[in-house]
Amino acid sequence: MLYFEEMKTQPDFIPSGGITSPGGFLAGAVSAGIKYAPPRLDLGVLFCESPARAAAAFTTNKVRAAPVLLNQRRLENGTARAVVMNSGYANSCTGAAGMADAEAMTALTAKHLGLKPEDVLVASTGVIGVRLPMERIGAAIPRVKPSREGGHDLARAIMTTDTVPKEAAVRGDGFTVGGMAKGSGMIHPDLATLLAFLTTDAAVEIGFLKKALKKAVAISFNMVSVDGDNSTNDMALLMASGRAGGKEITAGSRRAAAFQAALNMVCVHLACEIARDGEGATKLITVNVTGAANPADARRAARAIVGSALVKAAVHGGDPNWGRVVAAAGRSGAALDTARLELHIGGVCLVRDGAPHPYAKDAVVAHLNGNEVAIALNLNIGQAAATAWGCDLSPEYVSINSDYTT
Amino acid sequence: MLYFEEMKTQPDFIPSGGITSPGGFLAGAVSAGIKYAPPRLDLGVLFCESPARAAAAFTTNKVRAAPVLLNQRRLENGTARAVVMNSGYANSCTGAAGMADAEAMTALTAKHLGLKPEDVLVASTGVIGVRLPMERIGAAIPRVKPSREGGHDLARAIMTTDTVPKEAAVRGDGFTVGGMAKGSGMIHPDLATLLAFLTTDAAVEIGFLKKALKKAVAISFNMVSVDGDNSTNDMALLMASGRAGGKEITAGSRRAAAFQAALNMVCVHLACEIARDGEGATKLITVNVTGAANPADARRAARAIVGSALVKAAVHGGDPNWGRVVAAAGRSGAALDTARLELHIGGVCLVRDGAPHPYAKDAVVAHLNGNEVAIALNLNIGQAAATAWGCDLSPEYVSINSDYTT
Repeated sequence: MLYFEEMKTQPDFIPSGGITSPGGFLAGAVSAGIKYAPPRLDLGVLFCESPARAAAAFTTNKVRAAPVLLNQRRLENGTARAVVMNSGYANSCTGAAGMADAEAMTALTAKHLGLKPEDVLVASTGVIGVRLPMERIGAAIPRVKPSREGGHDLARAIMTTDTVPKEAAVRGDGFTVGGMAKGSGMIHPDLATLLAFLTTDAAVEIGFLKKALKKAVAISFNMVSVDGDNSTNDMALLMASGRAGGKEITAGSRRAAAFQAALNMVCVHLACEIARDGEGATKLITVNVTGAANPADARRAARAIVGSALVKAAVHGGDPNWGRVVAAAGRSGAALDTARLELHIGGVCLVRDGAPHPYAKDAVVAHLNGNEVAIALNLNIGQAAATAWGCDLSPEYVSINSDYTT
Repeated sequence: MLYFEEMKTQPDFIPSGGITSPGGFLAGAVSAGIKYAPPRLDLGVLFCESPARAAAAFTTNKVRAAPVLLNQRRLENGTARAVVMNSGYANSCTGAAGMADAEAMTALTAKHLGLKPEDVLVASTGVIGVRLPMERIGAAIPRVKPSREGGHDLARAIMTTDTVPKEAAVRGDGFTVGGMAKGSGMIHPDLATLLAFLTTDAAVEIGFLKKALKKAVAISFNMVSVDGDNSTNDMALLMASGRAGGKEITAGSRRAAAFQAALNMVCVHLACEIARDGEGATKLITVNVTGAANPADARRAARAIVGSALVKAAVHGGDPNWGRVVAAAGRSGAALDTARLELHIGGVCLVRDGAPHPYAKDAVVAHLNGNEVAIALNLNIGQAAATAWGCDLSPEYVSINSDYTT
């Protein structure tokens, strides 16, 4: 897995860490039978024992689900105490009734935890355009018992077509950052993401919390593509309990870089896990674009390559069809000069000065047939670089998505 | 198949018509064994008996194949006599040697037909990054015998993963417009297209010829998406022999609208055929977006829907997962108001005022299981409309693209 220069002083991953690793956070989940048959977990709560500072990034899709609209409003004051979550149905395109359902979920959760509804956020994921079964949800919420160990259950409760939960936590300079995410399909985030929940016990000033999240999301979740579609429910939420104590971390403070590094590390880890577990995926594809004229061009080219159906299918088949990589960069909008392109797959050079370069085909095919595929394109016209993650396109992706609602 | 308002006075299709239906055009093809084993046709020539006015639209991909670069130069004077074409290899990313190969192809063709190299254009399609076998091509060119009946052979010679040739011709007001195209994969044109060749015997002024082509391409080939990738070799070429005689057609002249209508009709027909025959496709999907704030928004939304991997997979499985249609429109960049959306599939209303509308599921599933699927989204905020064409996403698409070069 590729990290970034700015992460030279890497914090440590906490084995089996997750959303409740940082102090002050509890979580729990139950089976409510929303869409999936029990005993599958599908409803849960993230709870902070004291008011947490909270920042979020939301989908840029103009069709926004009720939970997204409600959270945007409730986060205006920069604080939150809890998030109620469900999988199965996304509560998107459900009109005014759907908004009432989202509000009811937060009210029921507030009552259960002794909070005000305004302090509770909500997240839903699953099929669009179906009303939530509020009776079952109302019966299930009081059964959720948040605990220090409950993070793993909650990570499972937000899964849809995900095959594994995605969790991570790292220890920083006197604080911890934890997180969980769900991904799989409709994944091609833009300024926001899938569902990602991040926690920290660091005491972080709200302005810097927002900036740090924005930066971490830009280089992690926003650089993942599974299928080019972005969802109506995408959201990344970061809550800081302040339990670790110490001097408040602000933009210019001593530990600002350490906090950003820890947050980046958790986000990049979760982003990679989402790519690796994309619907039907058998491989993680990492695309590193260097030598771009500017950072935006580098990101554009990396995302176009990792999102190309033809590149993804070629990787799936172990086919070193490098013309597709170059063609994807060419249509990305990034400035480039064909005659300067240099392409490596698995460390082997296939293209130099924009023309075919003799290479050991067996080595490249063997690399493509592994679980992690590294594509590196040097545009050779500037200094900017970016990394994007994705997965191969398999017949299984089509099967999964041919009969999702029926 | 949906046509457009401006086509109210539709010209007639010519049964079994094609590129050599208009007077003055001859064509022929042979098997050169470039990549495919003989006797598969893979090399051919389109020839105009007298100098033709010629206009073209090219790929916007920044990586451009040698034939594209050469044609751009040669079309500056607005005339051409012949086009030599091959399938198998695209002569793209082949450096200076590739440019020399493209020039050699035109020189050999010019010698064979008694023309100057500058009057000959070239088109290649197939795998990127492989040099053309010039010895075999040089031996094959003199064997091509252009004839009035040769259009069908030429349409076959440019096929790669296409399963059927795409040809059409219509009779207009004292003139004929013919055309052929190839499509299949790497299809998501932008201001240009796949490979499309159009001919007419109408006498058309060069300025209007260029404008008419631009307009026809915008509503036809540019509204087709197979997989979101656009090629390094895309090109649409229109040649006018003037053989039909009559007064020259100019922008303001009496027959300008009739010429545009005939050209649109041939281009839309070929575009639909390309979508229907997309790699692995089993269905033609037509997406009609109405009520958009402006034409650009209408096109954006229609293309996003028809290009969505999730929509395409749902259609493949006969699954009325309409949330994906709405989500694709939402991320398209088109202005919209969720609460005003109205969606019909196969004429059945599934969404009204942005919320689920009770519908006969059996009827929609039956429509989705047919060969032609019609999706109509009314944004209800303006007057602009656009139509886009695409195809379903099948496991076969992945199989085709997993082992294309190997």
